[in-house]
Amino acid sequence: MQAVILSGSPSDSDWVEKIVAVLDQLDVPVVKRVGSAHRVPEHVLALLRHHDAQPNTVFITVAGMSDALSGLTDANVVSPVIACPPRSDAFAGLDVLSSLRTPPGVAPVVALDPANAALAAAKILALGDDDLAKRVAAHQQTKADRVLAADQGPDRP
Amino acid sequence: MQAVILSGSPSDSDWVEKIVAVLDQLDVPVVKRVGSAHRVPEHVLALLRHHDAQPNTVFITVAGMSDALSGLTDANVVSPVIACPPRSDAFAGLDVLSSLRTPPGVAPVVALDPANAALAAAKILALGDDDLAKRVAAHQQTKADRVLAADQGPDRP
Amino acid sequence: MQAVILSGSPSDSDWVEKIVAVLDQLDVPVVKRVGSAHRVPEHVLALLRHHDAQPNTVFITVAGMSDALSGLTDANVVSPVIACPPRSDAFAGLDVLSSLRTPPGVAPVVALDPANAALAAAKILALGDDDLAKRVAAHQQTKADRVLAADQGPDRP
Amino acid sequence: MQAVILSGSPSDSDWVEKIVAVLDQLDVPVVKRVGSAHRVPEHVLALLRHHDAQPNTVFITVAGMSDALSGLTDANVVSPVIACPPRSDAFAGLDVLSSLRTPPGVAPVVALDPANAALAAAKILALGDDDLAKRVAAHQQTKADRVLAADQGPDRP
Amino acid sequence: MQAVILSGSPSDSDWVEKIVAVLDQLDVPVVKRVGSAHRVPEHVLALLRHHDAQPNTVFITVAGMSDALSGLTDANVVSPVIACPPRSDAFAGLDVLSSLRTPPGVAPVVALDPANAALAAAKILALGDDDLAKRVAAHQQTKADRVLAADQGPDRP
Amino acid sequence: MQAVILSGSPSDSDWVEKIVAVLDQLDVPVVKRVGSAHRVPEHVLALLRHHDAQPNTVFITVAGMSDALSGLTDANVVSPVIACPPRSDAFAGLDVLSSLRTPPGVAPVVALDPANAALAAAKILALGDDDLAKRVAAHQQTKADRVLAADQGPDRP
Amino acid sequence: MQAVILSGSPSDSDWVEKIVAVLDQLDVPVVKRVGSAHRVPEHVLALLRHHDAQPNTVFITVAGMSDALSGLTDANVVSPVIACPPRSDAFAGLDVLSSLRTPPGVAPVVALDPANAALAAAKILALGDDDLAKRVAAHQQTKADRVLAADQGPDRP
Amino acid sequence: MQAVILSGSPSDSDWVEKIVAVLDQLDVPVVKRVGSAHRVPEHVLALLRHHDAQPNTVFITVAGMSDALSGLTDANVVSPVIACPPRSDAFAGLDVLSSLRTPPGVAPVVALDPANAALAAAKILALGDDDLAKRVAAHQQTKADRVLAADQGPDRP
Repeated sequence: MQAVILSGSPSDSDWVEKIVAVLDQLDVPVVKRVGSAHRVPEHVLALLRHHDAQPNTVFITVAGMSDALSGLTDANVVSPVIACPPRSDAFAGLDVLSSLRTPPGVAPVVALDPANAALAAAKILALGDDDLAKRVAAHQQTKADRVLAADQGPDRP
Repeated sequence: MQAVILSGSPSDSDWVEKIVAVLDQLDVPVVKRVGSAHRVPEHVLALLRHHDAQPNTVFITVAGMSDALSGLTDANVVSPVIACPPRSDAFAGLDVLSSLRTPPGVAPVVALDPANAALAAAKILALGDDDLAKRVAAHQQTKADRVLAADQGPDRP
Repeated sequence: MQAVILSGSPSDSDWVEKIVAVLDQLDVPVVKRVGSAHRVPEHVLALLRHHDAQPNTVFITVAGMSDALSGLTDANVVSPVIACPPRSDAFAGLDVLSSLRTPPGVAPVVALDPANAALAAAKILALGDDDLAKRVAAHQQTKADRVLAADQGPDRP
Repeated sequence: MQAVILSGSPSDSDWVEKIVAVLDQLDVPVVKRVGSAHRVPEHVLALLRHHDAQPNTVFITVAGMSDALSGLTDANVVSPVIACPPRSDAFAGLDVLSSLRTPPGVAPVVALDPANAALAAAKILALGDDDLAKRVAAHQQTKADRVLAADQGPDRP
Repeated sequence: MQAVILSGSPSDSDWVEKIVAVLDQLDVPVVKRVGSAHRVPEHVLALLRHHDAQPNTVFITVAGMSDALSGLTDANVVSPVIACPPRSDAFAGLDVLSSLRTPPGVAPVVALDPANAALAAAKILALGDDDLAKRVAAHQQTKADRVLAADQGPDRP
Repeated sequence: MQAVILSGSPSDSDWVEKIVAVLDQLDVPVVKRVGSAHRVPEHVLALLRHHDAQPNTVFITVAGMSDALSGLTDANVVSPVIACPPRSDAFAGLDVLSSLRTPPGVAPVVALDPANAALAAAKILALGDDDLAKRVAAHQQTKADRVLAADQGPDRP
Repeated sequence: MQAVILSGSPSDSDWVEKIVAVLDQLDVPVVKRVGSAHRVPEHVLALLRHHDAQPNTVFITVAGMSDALSGLTDANVVSPVIACPPRSDAFAGLDVLSSLRTPPGVAPVVALDPANAALAAAKILALGDDDLAKRVAAHQQTKADRVLAADQGPDRP
Repeated sequence: MQAVILSGSPSDSDWVEKIVAVLDQLDVPVVKRVGSAHRVPEHVLALLRHHDAQPNTVFITVAGMSDALSGLTDANVVSPVIACPPRSDAFAGLDVLSSLRTPPGVAPVVALDPANAALAAAKILALGDDDLAKRVAAHQQTKADRVLAADQGPDRP
């Protein structure tokens, strides 16, 4: 079981670490790789094949501006792929369209928040790991409890 | 193994059928449910718990306009959730922000194309099913072959 | 008579206080509650029913990013519901579409400015309270007088 | 008790009738008026004062393109005001910003769907009319029942 | 001859002064007025009639957020009206649609830059004043000369 | 007295005729010219100088897509310039930014509606022509009367 | 000398033919290839190397939705690359951001109009071919003459 | 061989220098010119003709806000033209539409990043200069190597 985080540039490392932080909390093994779909596509294809051949792999792709990496990754692996583009305010944030608007058969799914990319990867891997499923459920419960604790109503649970 | 397609309204059925068509091609069992997060939240919560307790479940949520269903679903199941909102041209299509902009800990992932929601669900379920993995790979190969067949260059494979 | 301000997260408290400030000026009783439509929907439904059963209640819902709370609230209470999402600059502010784009029968109304959410709630409650109506009228007059006072024209009133 | 629908132009009459249809279903008395904030502001002010002096009045303002009518109405009446601008696809629908972006103290609330403008008006008037409150609740239940009836799950209620 | 700058709020005074600065350079007489179309429409109508009756008047309207003032002004005066809404970054600056999207017969023209609102007003007034026309031409020449002076090419004039 | 309508391409002629129709109603003399700022700038400069030298001239510029014509015109004439770009739905209509976003000193003013470009030109020319001012006022009154006639209220004038 | 038009899918062929039509008019040799950056990246890389090794080559890339092809092409060839994405109205046309927003060092240039992609390619190839330069100049002159012919002014050339 | 960088205003000089920096790295001769399409069109036309008559010229045009310069340049030279508008956050960056939306026959190509405008110019000039082609290839290789060096995978090259 592993989450392979593939970023398009070393400059995306801060965003990658936000994803890693939540995967670590959930005790999901992480592999970090770097490879640009534009500049070193053969390197990317080689590493995709390497990791796709390993059991229970989920890819998380991190590429800003025009995201070619998520589509290239998804079309060349059987494992599921979660695109998590770094936040940018340029052009009202609509660079995310490049992660979302892939044609039929090229199917990365998109999570905007890095914590959510990690949680979605954990949910996928938890289908085959009951202990991880319990950790996911506990993580969700903690979030819910925090909301309940903030409520002051007379009828709160 | 199952893909549970939960739509927010009976009016979304055409979009649901586009998802079903590709799941059928990939031989993934499908369950179709209807429930509005706004109008019948307790019905939704009951059906989520029912299906989430079944092994190897992926949810695909289909809700147009303001999509509350995907977030409600994701926060209340351990299974992975793919949001696939029906296409709308109103407001330049930006209703999709309501599927994408969930807070940390509420982690539906988004696929805009219905064929891609189906394919992503199949990839997730294929982590635990080698035969499905082979069908996914064959599906991808067919798409690639169609592109190659359209090329007329002297150096095409 | 009461305005129930329901926020989706404790992190919205600054925005809630801007609403409270104007309700206090207008001497409208305020109840503050916290509950996430995504994470603790049953808690939310319980508190909605509790407050909806009280006479002369207006709900003000405060939920950022994808606003599921306003629609869930409106569909489950007979009392009127005013959505007042916290301002965000992400995606050119278009998260507000998630408050606005509810389907027929799910009818929260939207006020962007927190002072205006308070004033609209007061106007609604003033239909059954002549003293409050007078305070609303005085509040409006004060605003108008401030504009008149700033004018230096020879023909100003 | 009355809903006064004030439209800015006779060309908005189709949109007005969509609002009237739902108010009629809910048995809410309707008054229809026409007056442009730009062209005949004194006529508008006169009719606003006339209707605002009547008990239990809610205004619904209908003005397309740049909506000056909703703000003018709200600032000059104590009664609540719901802006319901006719749908337009020009500029990605963002004419709605002119209804939404009023300054503090000018507090029309916005409903995009004409059925929802009617329902919100009914909810407001129902605070002072228990029979109308029952009709609103029944209207909401009918909508919920339609969703439940469309669901085919084994565990549906 | 006069440019009447009518702003909707005392908070717009910085923007007004940017317009005044260029009108002063061009030696165009300026009258500054304040009046909100929403809050004090009768005051606005009174001052519009007062100034519209004076010969050779151009109005410059300054109103942020939803601009009702420019349309109200234009429809109630025969003199030309230039809308110059203060810059805002909210909603990607698209509040300007409220100045632009007036219906046929309500015809304020829009200048985004305050220096340009002043220059356009001067050009209009210069139709009846040859000396002002010369000052406008000199102003334009100065701008052109600054560009030429910055060029270092061997073939520059 | 004349309104010179300068369009960038013969394909804009339908839009030009909408402007002409209202100028004809108001009995304003019209000159129609064609010239592309991109393709035949020297031809444009020649015709601008020719018409700018005539008394009481207002230019109306009609150029779609990226509007270079309005800025080029304004910077090279002393007469006022109204940009009236043909409506396009491409890119959510935001080609209008190219008419609006000119730098300080380049001051075309923008009217989106062709009837309003004509009316604004007439208002400008009416500063020096009392009869035209009366026709403008009558035109405005007709528009106002049409709204009043559509109102059915008991208190209408 | 050649323009290699590389499209991402056989469904782009209508758009490709619009480019070919103008290249044919300008007598520029054309090679048409098909290859998806997502689905068959190695095929694309092979054909890029094949054509990049030929002298005087310009690539024109045609890929809709999320355009990965233009960046992949540019980063892997020394020849210049013009991205010409097919027009789409989805998301207000902003898929073009995926062609535009490439990182430093990945430098496709963008032409939205297919005739312009062809003309820009011809201009580039004309740097090394005086006869083509003459055909480009004649093409430009024809466009200019058409505008001049449409003008009816007394002072037209 | 030369890259002529033509900016519309001396205030664009910082952006120009970013382009120059990469052209210097690639050892491409640079000429810097200043000229506004709006304000000094005849100066611009003169310098365009001067430089267009020199062999192996590529123009890079730098004009912010409404970019008239790129279209004017392209339509009046046979040499290729790359538009590189300075970045602005106003209106969500959509001033770039004015560089992109030129009509058929007016064909500047657009590069958003200044380093990419330089690289694209170098690629064009390299068609006729094998040494420059080698420098371009080395530049691309350096970028690719930086990505590879950042990767820590066991299977990296």
